[in-house]
Amino acid sequence: MKALVKTSQAPGFEYIDVDMPTIGPKDVLIKVKTTSICGSDIHAFHSSPGIMHLMKLPVIMGHETCGEIVEVGEGVTNLKKGDLVSPEPHIFCGVCYYCQTGAALNCQNMGLFGISTDGAFAEYAKIPESACWKHPEGTSYELGAIHEPLGVAMHGVMAGEINGKSVAVFGCGPIGLFAIGASRVFGATKVFALEIAPKRLVMARQLFPDVTLINPKEQDPVKTIMEATDGLGVDVSIELSGSPEALKQTFKVLKREGRVSLVGILAGPVELEVHKDIILKEARVFGVFGRVVWQTWWQVRALLDTGKFDPLPVITHRFPLSDFKQAFELATSGEAGKILLFP
Amino acid sequence: MKALVKTSQAPGFEYIDVDMPTIGPKDVLIKVKTTSICGSDIHAFHSSPGIMHLMKLPVIMGHETCGEIVEVGEGVTNLKKGDLVSPEPHIFCGVCYYCQTGAALNCQNMGLFGISTDGAFAEYAKIPESACWKHPEGTSYELGAIHEPLGVAMHGVMAGEINGKSVAVFGCGPIGLFAIGASRVFGATKVFALEIAPKRLVMARQLFPDVTLINPKEQDPVKTIMEATDGLGVDVSIELSGSPEALKQTFKVLKREGRVSLVGILAGPVELEVHKDIILKEARVFGVFGRVVWQTWWQVRALLDTGKFDPLPVITHRFPLSDFKQAFELATSGEAGKILLFP
Amino acid sequence: MKALVKTSQAPGFEYIDVDMPTIGPKDVLIKVKTTSICGSDIHAFHSSPGIMHLMKLPVIMGHETCGEIVEVGEGVTNLKKGDLVSPEPHIFCGVCYYCQTGAALNCQNMGLFGISTDGAFAEYAKIPESACWKHPEGTSYELGAIHEPLGVAMHGVMAGEINGKSVAVFGCGPIGLFAIGASRVFGATKVFALEIAPKRLVMARQLFPDVTLINPKEQDPVKTIMEATDGLGVDVSIELSGSPEALKQTFKVLKREGRVSLVGILAGPVELEVHKDIILKEARVFGVFGRVVWQTWWQVRALLDTGKFDPLPVITHRFPLSDFKQAFELATSGEAGKILLFP
Amino acid sequence: MKALVKTSQAPGFEYIDVDMPTIGPKDVLIKVKTTSICGSDIHAFHSSPGIMHLMKLPVIMGHETCGEIVEVGEGVTNLKKGDLVSPEPHIFCGVCYYCQTGAALNCQNMGLFGISTDGAFAEYAKIPESACWKHPEGTSYELGAIHEPLGVAMHGVMAGEINGKSVAVFGCGPIGLFAIGASRVFGATKVFALEIAPKRLVMARQLFPDVTLINPKEQDPVKTIMEATDGLGVDVSIELSGSPEALKQTFKVLKREGRVSLVGILAGPVELEVHKDIILKEARVFGVFGRVVWQTWWQVRALLDTGKFDPLPVITHRFPLSDFKQAFELATSGEAGKILLFP
Repeated sequence: MKALVKTSQAPGFEYIDVDMPTIGPKDVLIKVKTTSICGSDIHAFHSSPGIMHLMKLPVIMGHETCGEIVEVGEGVTNLKKGDLVSPEPHIFCGVCYYCQTGAALNCQNMGLFGISTDGAFAEYAKIPESACWKHPEGTSYELGAIHEPLGVAMHGVMAGEINGKSVAVFGCGPIGLFAIGASRVFGATKVFALEIAPKRLVMARQLFPDVTLINPKEQDPVKTIMEATDGLGVDVSIELSGSPEALKQTFKVLKREGRVSLVGILAGPVELEVHKDIILKEARVFGVFGRVVWQTWWQVRALLDTGKFDPLPVITHRFPLSDFKQAFELATSGEAGKILLFP
Repeated sequence: MKALVKTSQAPGFEYIDVDMPTIGPKDVLIKVKTTSICGSDIHAFHSSPGIMHLMKLPVIMGHETCGEIVEVGEGVTNLKKGDLVSPEPHIFCGVCYYCQTGAALNCQNMGLFGISTDGAFAEYAKIPESACWKHPEGTSYELGAIHEPLGVAMHGVMAGEINGKSVAVFGCGPIGLFAIGASRVFGATKVFALEIAPKRLVMARQLFPDVTLINPKEQDPVKTIMEATDGLGVDVSIELSGSPEALKQTFKVLKREGRVSLVGILAGPVELEVHKDIILKEARVFGVFGRVVWQTWWQVRALLDTGKFDPLPVITHRFPLSDFKQAFELATSGEAGKILLFP
Repeated sequence: MKALVKTSQAPGFEYIDVDMPTIGPKDVLIKVKTTSICGSDIHAFHSSPGIMHLMKLPVIMGHETCGEIVEVGEGVTNLKKGDLVSPEPHIFCGVCYYCQTGAALNCQNMGLFGISTDGAFAEYAKIPESACWKHPEGTSYELGAIHEPLGVAMHGVMAGEINGKSVAVFGCGPIGLFAIGASRVFGATKVFALEIAPKRLVMARQLFPDVTLINPKEQDPVKTIMEATDGLGVDVSIELSGSPEALKQTFKVLKREGRVSLVGILAGPVELEVHKDIILKEARVFGVFGRVVWQTWWQVRALLDTGKFDPLPVITHRFPLSDFKQAFELATSGEAGKILLFP
Repeated sequence: MKALVKTSQAPGFEYIDVDMPTIGPKDVLIKVKTTSICGSDIHAFHSSPGIMHLMKLPVIMGHETCGEIVEVGEGVTNLKKGDLVSPEPHIFCGVCYYCQTGAALNCQNMGLFGISTDGAFAEYAKIPESACWKHPEGTSYELGAIHEPLGVAMHGVMAGEINGKSVAVFGCGPIGLFAIGASRVFGATKVFALEIAPKRLVMARQLFPDVTLINPKEQDPVKTIMEATDGLGVDVSIELSGSPEALKQTFKVLKREGRVSLVGILAGPVELEVHKDIILKEARVFGVFGRVVWQTWWQVRALLDTGKFDPLPVITHRFPLSDFKQAFELATSGEAGKILLFP
């Protein structure tokens, strides 16, 4: 079959023929319907150091996917041919201390689908049954493929209370847009969205006409938010941009006893005014990584069940898998929403 | 009456005669029994920039105090002559947004007893009734005077779960010793205590024979703690030393999804590996400042009610107020526990 | 001035001339704009035993009110003439154990505005400053008057998580309708609403077209809800009807580990299958009474700030205060929404 | 092998020869070291209706056990011969909605070890690997066998906050004694223990000299507790006796906004003053059943790690399995602590 493979430490991927996956007794084989590009895929494409140490080469990339089961191992008990599933890319062991205490997300024996084991930028992919999320009948392939990144946004939003809270979302990439959507449906009052890329600002405006958009290149976000909140600041700050400058601002715009969710990947250390911004303010800061297994997935389903937020418009481009170079160039530009690749 | 006054921006205090306080209708006048020296008093003594901007000179210093009411204003309804009280030094307004939502600690109109208004290094002191904590009959003056710093430690310990948790306490000054005591009574399992000052290590050992003491100058605290916790790290890290180096270590010794309470006053910004230490670890970080009004005071009473921790041995020195220079030199040395001044 | 007074144990009220209230130094005097009828007013009108023991006769009734301040006591510091305010009817002391620990709602020295002290079915009313909620400028009198019952609903909804949860609301009287509105804005997915009164069913249908309405007289609510939730039941049950039968059903329709909020006033003891319905199901049951001071009021403001729920259509009738008999007959019939009386 | 089997609906068990268990690929076979008698075993012995409908006859009884692994299935990955393990008797499926959301305790496909599937009143027993708790090396067989009932007590104690709280424990059977021990180690202040059986009162007194013991046959528990708590009541009530009368008292002795954990098995419906005891009091009531998998087991280990509570003295009697009749008679009498049976 055809697959997109990271074969060496050099930048780029190779679109090559590989063997079909062979499944074990507790695995399923899916026919991949579509797979979206994640920020970490972009980092891998460029061989960024932050991701390379996690990879086991050669490896088929791609983890935000949706596929139909075409084969099940003999020990599989809860899934069958024809089921539409997505993988939780954090392949957890189920028996370590973290898995035993509701923290499978931090499994001590974690495998990373599409990073340390073969993923889904391919025609077929193998997934352990225990890592499969089964979609309800009628779920579209594209919606299925973005459940996983929706979960990242959801985890950031739901790391603390959101009901009746004012929120600042730093970064309007796909995860940021999902976070705005989830915040609004789950009861946020005022939402401030910060972004510097012009096309993303346009997208945010179209999707969320009632959100206060701020371009930090054009106006001081701290001043703007403090004025709009009677000098109190926001209840919740969510950092999704990975920018150290934005990270610092998450604290500056925060209300006393407010909550910060840190989600965006940071390239290096950051200098923080810990005393002024965290201690004196009694800030509560939550590191957010991946999704809570499986609670976050259920929350995503609940979000979609409300019928009040349609995430599909966040998908802006679709390419055949063979046109991956064009897709990754676009993804790198920051001028797109979610980009899907079809095998 | 005699009082210890910060009269100017210059280092030091003056021990001078001042007018007796005159109380308003909602105030009480106390005859000060004893007042202990807080870290912020030491900073004020040395005119450290971190504290000076909060002060309104001239001001009588001292806020960790205990006194007997000798006069009550005509509008006072719940206190009477003879009651033994301590002030919550964060004089809150009771009507702002924070006061209205259970966060009086972050009052927008905060007065600071002994910092921005006259305090208790004096023979008498005035306190608003609303800021008085009434001690049960039979409370000793010395125990009364250290309720407030006990509360700082308690707030740090109780900012998250402590039951059945392993804990690392950074710093064995008075607040650190109180935090160790509270952690143990309230259900911590393994407790690691870190300190570099030899006399404080001795005190910690005497008070808590079963705690694992670590002198970071002599052994690597991260290695020691990781080895003693099966490579997982501690559930809870409490930073009380104000050292940037210690602050960084609070994250290094932390279990995934663990909790950090940041209490110690930091002189400047700190460079943190936010991505590795907070995001990937899903750390929960709580800024801790002062006490929750009045929940923390009730928790202190509950701690004392258990009869399982006696904080009085943390008091190591007692001076007449007139010998304040000697007391502050000793306090500055880091070679003492709590130091009391008697007017 | 004219006022509606409960003068004796006999059923009914008297519409009579009374003296103008005289305010103390910490009180304000309001000119009452409008006051709505609460369920407890109806109980008082009929001299139901459940309410009579709380009353101190004679007393001016009415507590869900909104008025403009026309006079302030000399000790009032945060309010001024012209401010639009509503009272928190639970007049709390501010200094007892409960008030000190964030539970003013359970104050040990509680006064009840309009029940144990004179209320607002009158031209003017006296309120302690500490019990005043100040509305933002531009708040309509009618919206102001229903903040308090909105808070009862809000407290029931927010006693646990509501985001992404399925909810069953038992009773579509005004509080039930408010609870449906708050649940939807604050992120509930499926909402089931139960009611037997035809006019209230109509009102619920008009206000919330997408809610599943159930008339327990016509269909089995347990069967209906279990079928609509894949046999799991709802995440949250909120009892607002005061019917013992409904109370039992709140548990029968509940998911394992689900949450029940009990709000509706019950006339007597209820026989519950505690083992089957609470223990084996690991149900979490919350008694809900009044509002959390002032957090619930802030949540009500947040709800209104979202702009996604307009509670005003729940007000169905308006009468001059002198026509109180007609108003209370209508209120007793269960055929109306909120009824306002204008002095 | 020899085993104690419930063969029919008739009261009593049979001590008979049965086939050795045959294990599947994901099971382990243990050589049973000792198994303690649970309250539900007593109910099964007497064929009480409350338990019989859960049983699948014939079935080997016994679930509070500890054994050494003597054989592992080919698919077992984390356990090996020689490991000392105990089963979580709630055999959960791992894939249903509850299992996926951290509520395996409420698994929709639950098997009950020793009730609906063969248990451990036998020489050998089969356990799925996924239901095994592995003890640290050096754990004694007897301590291993009582981990499971310790967990029931722990779950009741930890269903809400316990630190600095006053607690009333209703019932001083083994679970009640465990609950007292856990409450004290995890930071309870005053503990009240209620019991009517003379021998259990003696045992409670010996184990916990500083607890306030109340025999409701000799003194009014409500009056006693209210007087000892300044008229406020306790913060936490834990019902472990299964007595309807005790259940009612858990609410009567409860502080406003207090927490009730309901654990004891009740034979039938109970009439509660829901309005007075739950709603007006804003009580929080938690149904508690079994253990949270695996968090409660880790909490039990943490409790033991503190070294502050030794549960072994709660074991009062030991019998060979063949003397089961004598053991169950004693257990039924309520005059013993935990009783162990040795195969």
